[in-house]
Amino acid sequence: MLQKKSKYNLAIVGATGAVGTEMIRLVEERNFPVEKIKILASKKSLDKKLTISGHETLVEELRENSFSGIDIALFSAGSTISQKFAPLAVKAGAIVIDNSSTFRMDPKVPLIVPEVNPHDLKNHKGLIANPNCTTIIMAVAIFPIHKINPIKKITVASYQAVSGAGARALQELREQQTQILKGQTPDAKVFRYVIANNIFSHDSEVAQNGYNKEEIKMIEETKKIFGNPNLAINPTCIRVPIERAHSEAIILELTNPADEDLIRHTLAKSPGIKVVDDREKNYFPMPCEASHQNDVLVGRIRKDLTDERHLNLFVCGDQLLKGAALNALQIAELLISSRG
Amino acid sequence: MLQKKSKYNLAIVGATGAVGTEMIRLVEERNFPVEKIKILASKKSLDKKLTISGHETLVEELRENSFSGIDIALFSAGSTISQKFAPLAVKAGAIVIDNSSTFRMDPKVPLIVPEVNPHDLKNHKGLIANPNCTTIIMAVAIFPIHKINPIKKITVASYQAVSGAGARALQELREQQTQILKGQTPDAKVFRYVIANNIFSHDSEVAQNGYNKEEIKMIEETKKIFGNPNLAINPTCIRVPIERAHSEAIILELTNPADEDLIRHTLAKSPGIKVVDDREKNYFPMPCEASHQNDVLVGRIRKDLTDERHLNLFVCGDQLLKGAALNALQIAELLISSRG
Repeated sequence: MLQKKSKYNLAIVGATGAVGTEMIRLVEERNFPVEKIKILASKKSLDKKLTISGHETLVEELRENSFSGIDIALFSAGSTISQKFAPLAVKAGAIVIDNSSTFRMDPKVPLIVPEVNPHDLKNHKGLIANPNCTTIIMAVAIFPIHKINPIKKITVASYQAVSGAGARALQELREQQTQILKGQTPDAKVFRYVIANNIFSHDSEVAQNGYNKEEIKMIEETKKIFGNPNLAINPTCIRVPIERAHSEAIILELTNPADEDLIRHTLAKSPGIKVVDDREKNYFPMPCEASHQNDVLVGRIRKDLTDERHLNLFVCGDQLLKGAALNALQIAELLISSRG
Repeated sequence: MLQKKSKYNLAIVGATGAVGTEMIRLVEERNFPVEKIKILASKKSLDKKLTISGHETLVEELRENSFSGIDIALFSAGSTISQKFAPLAVKAGAIVIDNSSTFRMDPKVPLIVPEVNPHDLKNHKGLIANPNCTTIIMAVAIFPIHKINPIKKITVASYQAVSGAGARALQELREQQTQILKGQTPDAKVFRYVIANNIFSHDSEVAQNGYNKEEIKMIEETKKIFGNPNLAINPTCIRVPIERAHSEAIILELTNPADEDLIRHTLAKSPGIKVVDDREKNYFPMPCEASHQNDVLVGRIRKDLTDERHLNLFVCGDQLLKGAALNALQIAELLISSRG
């Protein structure tokens, strides 16, 4: 339970990474009520200085006793760090919002997309999980439709940006593009295969049933967020050679015939969504416009011509913002507003 | 009806374009029985010289009387040229294989993928249409499955290469990539939006029902090729920033439960297909490997976990080869072998 305060002590774990950097920026942008902010990172990042609200802030080494006096700790430093330090932070009295996949499917841990299942927050035991990026972006886009015409099945093919695999992958994309433009043969080091001028099935481990981890996250996490273990989800996750923002071609099987106009109208007034759907100008969601934008872009809203209960969408969202940092911060804001 | 000959007089219309260039290369590679080859192009290409079988060959200007003595004319110069000159070629006694969309849906014109509906060739009246590239690649990949377990519905999301929009679009991609790597803001001239570091809904006109022309081609042409006007097809066509080879995430609704092993085995022995499906190595079809390759690569063969009659595939094919030039030449070979 979060105490009622006018300002809170915040810790950000993994603050020098791509998501952590966005978290710090968003704390300022959204005027998050911060008393003190503690920037925690591994030893190798200790020399870095971060500028927060105009002040240079030292990065402190993450230790077992780092969380004393912390109200909310945002973790974004990978599963190993979360596994070890998140329970310690909770023990020290902090509420942890964890961006790793470690605790997401733990039945005692709420998995929250504030636009979808804010009510699940009330059951937290000090630890709250931030969902997978591709899952969050999809959930935000489809939930308003689900409320007016319940979704029975989701079929989705993704077009995922390289920065979702980290800063080194992004650097590799640029190096490979430079090599190709010079007529050289590109090297692959971070990814198994060359990503520049190529696309490939998502780079996470593939299970015996043929589904990769990213797809399994989409299946399991969406069911948990929607609170429906029977929701049918059939995903295909693909990496594409772009820097930022994930796109998804989504096909929904609805309970009743799809009313395109009603759905477009409903989406347009839903929080966290911007409808981009101009058929005349062939103007639909694009990752270049979703990048660095808080809203999820939704367009190509059209009925499957062969089944009026099926609806197609094309969706783009910034996987570092709504797919990670922004969603985590919104959970923190929800904690404060509900003091859950 | 093609006369029985040991060698044939061939005309290639639009020989200096991307598809025409591949046609000439394939005529040599496949030892197509050519007596004479006539290279026809617009006035602006007349200065170009092409090397065919080691001999420099002059490009001739396409005229109304260009087709006298020609047995087979391969057209790949766009709809306007086909509309005007294909009927003249037929009148002059040539059999025309046309790569434009002009005649594809004409009920008197067979629309042929040799691996799928070679039998439809027998009804030709001198004009045969080569299908849309995305459609051909999909048709080759799914037809062997259809034969053992009839397909009721196809859902498909595409990842289409830039060279499908022509040489200028490809040049634009490279220029934009160079601009981005230099930190400059890229310009869009050929496409409406920047394609480098971006993806967008296919650049063809969007109809009132929300489907673009590429998607409508996939729907109508697949029905015609499969000879089934009731086949349900729900496509989403997307352009991605890669140079060559189209990819497609395909979901099939089959009549009976999908038998993954049987399907993998059936695909592996089917003509025009190479199965690339190694889960342990996360090795699946990639456009970098499909480029400059005659076979369509098929992988990620896996059941939808929520419905055993649904099967997922990921497919890549070279849209200039099997998607255009190779398919046209295979139709010509079929004409010769059956003298249809």
